[in-house]
Amino acid sequence: MMKPSEFRQIVREGGHTGPTAGICPGYAQANLVILPRELAYDFLLFAQRNPKSCPILEVSDTGSRYLKEIAPGADIAKDIPRYRIYEHGVMTGEYTDVSAFWRDDLVSFLIGCSFSFEGELMEADVSVRHIEEGRNVPMYITNIPCQPAGVFQGNMVVSMRPLPYDQIVKSVLVTGSMPKVHGAPVHIGEPAAIGIRDIHTPDFGDSVTIRPGEVPVFWPCGVTPQAVLMASKPAFAITHAPGHMLVTDVKNVNLKY
Amino acid sequence: MMKPSEFRQIVREGGHTGPTAGICPGYAQANLVILPRELAYDFLLFAQRNPKSCPILEVSDTGSRYLKEIAPGADIAKDIPRYRIYEHGVMTGEYTDVSAFWRDDLVSFLIGCSFSFEGELMEADVSVRHIEEGRNVPMYITNIPCQPAGVFQGNMVVSMRPLPYDQIVKSVLVTGSMPKVHGAPVHIGEPAAIGIRDIHTPDFGDSVTIRPGEVPVFWPCGVTPQAVLMASKPAFAITHAPGHMLVTDVKNVNLKY
Repeated sequence: MMKPSEFRQIVREGGHTGPTAGICPGYAQANLVILPRELAYDFLLFAQRNPKSCPILEVSDTGSRYLKEIAPGADIAKDIPRYRIYEHGVMTGEYTDVSAFWRDDLVSFLIGCSFSFEGELMEADVSVRHIEEGRNVPMYITNIPCQPAGVFQGNMVVSMRPLPYDQIVKSVLVTGSMPKVHGAPVHIGEPAAIGIRDIHTPDFGDSVTIRPGEVPVFWPCGVTPQAVLMASKPAFAITHAPGHMLVTDVKNVNLKY
Repeated sequence: MMKPSEFRQIVREGGHTGPTAGICPGYAQANLVILPRELAYDFLLFAQRNPKSCPILEVSDTGSRYLKEIAPGADIAKDIPRYRIYEHGVMTGEYTDVSAFWRDDLVSFLIGCSFSFEGELMEADVSVRHIEEGRNVPMYITNIPCQPAGVFQGNMVVSMRPLPYDQIVKSVLVTGSMPKVHGAPVHIGEPAAIGIRDIHTPDFGDSVTIRPGEVPVFWPCGVTPQAVLMASKPAFAITHAPGHMLVTDVKNVNLKY
């Protein structure tokens, strides 16, 4: 099996520009947000106050393109297959390499991703509907307020996976053991209780089948910090393109400790 | 039993200026570090990179004396029985009220404390020697480097509790379930393995009895961020005086979730 460092080398050389789902199974993938230093304190504070929706795996040194912990030696400007650049909250381009845009005041935030707990759920024989159906996970904006921090505020975005009654407890225990990648569900059952009007019309991602007797289970979602960030219309930001993540050297199982 | 908010009111009015050990049993107590905003990013980043020795429970809004999460309504400049002020790394005074020193650029960090996990250990019938002997916990500077962040760097400080063989596993499980208050031990056994030359001569606190057959068990200690902070000689900082903590509204048992 290819090592994550080998995969990142291929990405760096332009040999993989597509999504990363299924790459290096068993290893954590991470969301990316790159911000100027002047916004970094508020963003780090937002993450500290909202760890379930914004679980930070690593923060780079200011101005450094290189990671030390979750993917030692990774060049954050080249080792992700596809990036998006935003100016004043508007996407101005997609790139496979953002090294030409690098600045000495940029800070990279690597954020835990539900791919990790989905891998552990499937290992534990818990079904993950959107993967079975080949779709993106359904995501919803809730009425649950995040704790604001400086310029950042907004409501929590959740992802939903429908489960039969006899898999719900196991899903809580498996994901609850992984607080670095969103942790336990934030809600089980009635969508209206958290402000979701129509479970079949997600705000992001795709709708999935909910079979008779199944219960919707909702987890805090990493789209939360991205939505909160973009609502503040930062002058400059770089993120990964959806589904095009950093493949790290950290095994999912080690996110439990 | 007195509620934490009632105790804080007494402190605010000057009616309690002593240590807080044993106050409001079952409720978490917190360490305090107050820094100017210009150092707050580096300190928050240090905590993010070293969560075991620097588990942050709450960070105030810049300039605000009031807490929202762990002790809603608490006045952080008055509700702790005793404070220390440091200038350029030197303690310049002890005070029971620091409101006269307040500035619009100050940020308060409330940091988890081993009192919480000691309470849970004793609930689980695990012995805590320094409490039995009426001493301060022994603490040691190790050779384990913290991940540096900006101006902050240094080695981890650990606290030690000697345990008989048949209580070690339970102590790992009990404290491992409380990552917000230092979590599981960082080392079990041979002190020299983590750079401790003489177990009977701690760098901070008191020596305690280690009985035949007992094993020293070492936990990350909240003195770490204080030691790292003072080594950087900040122009201005306020901390709690040792043993004089903020009594919060958070039950220890709720620090598990």
